[in-house]
Amino acid sequence: MRIAAPELEAITVRLLQTWRVPVDAARTVANHLVESSLAGVDSHGIMRLPQYLDAIEAGEIDVDAPISPVLDRGSIVAFEAYHAFGPVAGMVAAQVAAERAQSHGLSLVVMAHAGHAGRIGAYTGAIAEQGVLALAFCNSPVYGHFIAPPGSRTGRLATNPIAYGFPTLEGPVVADFATGSMPEGVIRLLRDRGNPAPPDMMLDARGEPTTDAGSLYTDPPGVILPLGGSRNGHKGFALGLLVEVLAGTLAGDKITDPNLRGNNLTFICIDVRATPAAPHFQELAAELVAYVHAAAPIREDGRVMVPGEKEQRTRAERLRSGIPIDSFTWEGIVSRAARLGVPLPFVADEEHQ
Amino acid sequence: MRIAAPELEAITVRLLQTWRVPVDAARTVANHLVESSLAGVDSHGIMRLPQYLDAIEAGEIDVDAPISPVLDRGSIVAFEAYHAFGPVAGMVAAQVAAERAQSHGLSLVVMAHAGHAGRIGAYTGAIAEQGVLALAFCNSPVYGHFIAPPGSRTGRLATNPIAYGFPTLEGPVVADFATGSMPEGVIRLLRDRGNPAPPDMMLDARGEPTTDAGSLYTDPPGVILPLGGSRNGHKGFALGLLVEVLAGTLAGDKITDPNLRGNNLTFICIDVRATPAAPHFQELAAELVAYVHAAAPIREDGRVMVPGEKEQRTRAERLRSGIPIDSFTWEGIVSRAARLGVPLPFVADEEHQ
Repeated sequence: MRIAAPELEAITVRLLQTWRVPVDAARTVANHLVESSLAGVDSHGIMRLPQYLDAIEAGEIDVDAPISPVLDRGSIVAFEAYHAFGPVAGMVAAQVAAERAQSHGLSLVVMAHAGHAGRIGAYTGAIAEQGVLALAFCNSPVYGHFIAPPGSRTGRLATNPIAYGFPTLEGPVVADFATGSMPEGVIRLLRDRGNPAPPDMMLDARGEPTTDAGSLYTDPPGVILPLGGSRNGHKGFALGLLVEVLAGTLAGDKITDPNLRGNNLTFICIDVRATPAAPHFQELAAELVAYVHAAAPIREDGRVMVPGEKEQRTRAERLRSGIPIDSFTWEGIVSRAARLGVPLPFVADEEHQ
Repeated sequence: MRIAAPELEAITVRLLQTWRVPVDAARTVANHLVESSLAGVDSHGIMRLPQYLDAIEAGEIDVDAPISPVLDRGSIVAFEAYHAFGPVAGMVAAQVAAERAQSHGLSLVVMAHAGHAGRIGAYTGAIAEQGVLALAFCNSPVYGHFIAPPGSRTGRLATNPIAYGFPTLEGPVVADFATGSMPEGVIRLLRDRGNPAPPDMMLDARGEPTTDAGSLYTDPPGVILPLGGSRNGHKGFALGLLVEVLAGTLAGDKITDPNLRGNNLTFICIDVRATPAAPHFQELAAELVAYVHAAAPIREDGRVMVPGEKEQRTRAERLRSGIPIDSFTWEGIVSRAARLGVPLPFVADEEHQ
């Protein structure tokens, strides 16, 4: 089933407003989810809508929460989000990070205790559009600790993603990836669709390699290997630990605190105009992209791409042909709409099937 | 063959001084190489000494080069190293990065055009000892481009390592890893010892998977896969590209410039006392380490470690039993010593064999 992006955005805004989300915030969240789905990042796209609605209902997201600075040193700013909507808090933090980098050259912005932050490349892309190089680091509390350290069968970190964005003459380059072998959301999708996980990405609860996506949700649970798998997992775990330190420890959070919910998000930003490369940075960055493009593909018809390029192409295709939605997600949306008394006439006809 | 660390350091200082390296610089370089070997990071240890000596002879390292600031904005400093010795330039940059973070909260230091920077975790460790969280990024020019983008058989990045260090109540945690599947130095060691490379880390010149370490040195050459290998190489390549942007592009370097030599090194530092976590950061960081240690090992006798811990244990062992040196490296040192007229009496007797 496919639904056009504007229609899906309208459904999302409507459902969020029924939960008293202010219209600007609802639009920010809807745009975030739909843009993620457009980019093909389904694990952080519209499949999250039922989860977000449930989180509001459970009081895990506070739709009226203020997003307050708790520290302001000019180039270093920290916010307490009080469980505000993740994409709303994320955009506030991103905008402050961009502005402070522009005025100070560098910035560090820590956003603590927001709801699910979503696709963090959305923020680094928005910052890079303003001529600022951005790094983003996102952690989750103990209940999201699916990633085991090398040699262990116990989760100790969430899939702690890293994103970045930098401006070039040809537009920003944006990367966004989990420091685990796979994002938990993707494994959940595989389980929901009855598909196996690829090899060398998971261990079952006894510490044996497995491709059974469901083994992550047993009791006791299995684990996801860090990026790099059985041979190079020490590198992925080191990256995940760095994310934990930058997003969690710098915010003052205790790793084992059972009361923490949602995501923390930390930005490090550099105004490229304040560096030795200025004013040539964007030209040099475009040359770097062109150099990667000029690499020989292994397959004759292959195309060598920089990060974010595949997502741009998927976006163009899905803007034309609509966003595919799996039946599990769609049923989740339909059932919640029914309970909220929101009709979904847009998608009742055969055209969308 | 094993040699005691102080003896190896003395040999190294002596050989460097024969090439007119000032004594302080010679000690810095010798300490860097020997500490890397002690830590078990052989690819960046004493095996580099013949290469360093040849680089001085070839004029690729300038032992008298000034290390000059070309930009100073307080929290952002850039240096031109004029092909000074990498470990010397690296320690200058690290010290400035630590001091500027302490005075401004954040710092960005770019060191352009140094000799081989060595084990960059040495610098982040030195910064973390001063209560400052440090990230380091190191790139190499085109001749070091062994890492192919996903779907390509052409090298486009060097193995561009990332290092970090952060202080804890129990001492710094230090990580240091290449964003390729393997460092080129390790593949060179495997070739020198006649050993194969592990699977899913290399492609031959035609783009076919290979475990032949020598295939990296054919003409045309093979390539190293990014961290993550055939399935997750897009993440490793994205990381390597980030390193290239932070170390190369920010310095104003053009990626295809054939005249570039050596390494660039960029530090991003955060004084943890300027963040919302202060003054609890080091306590919270120690709790994070303890939480990782408490994870269940897969093997009953296993030990779950944080980054840098294995290196600390290797260091303790090698301080006791000496540094193992492969015959290829040792012959390289002996032949250069002979040519320079430096006797190596320390190691002529049987005790060291």
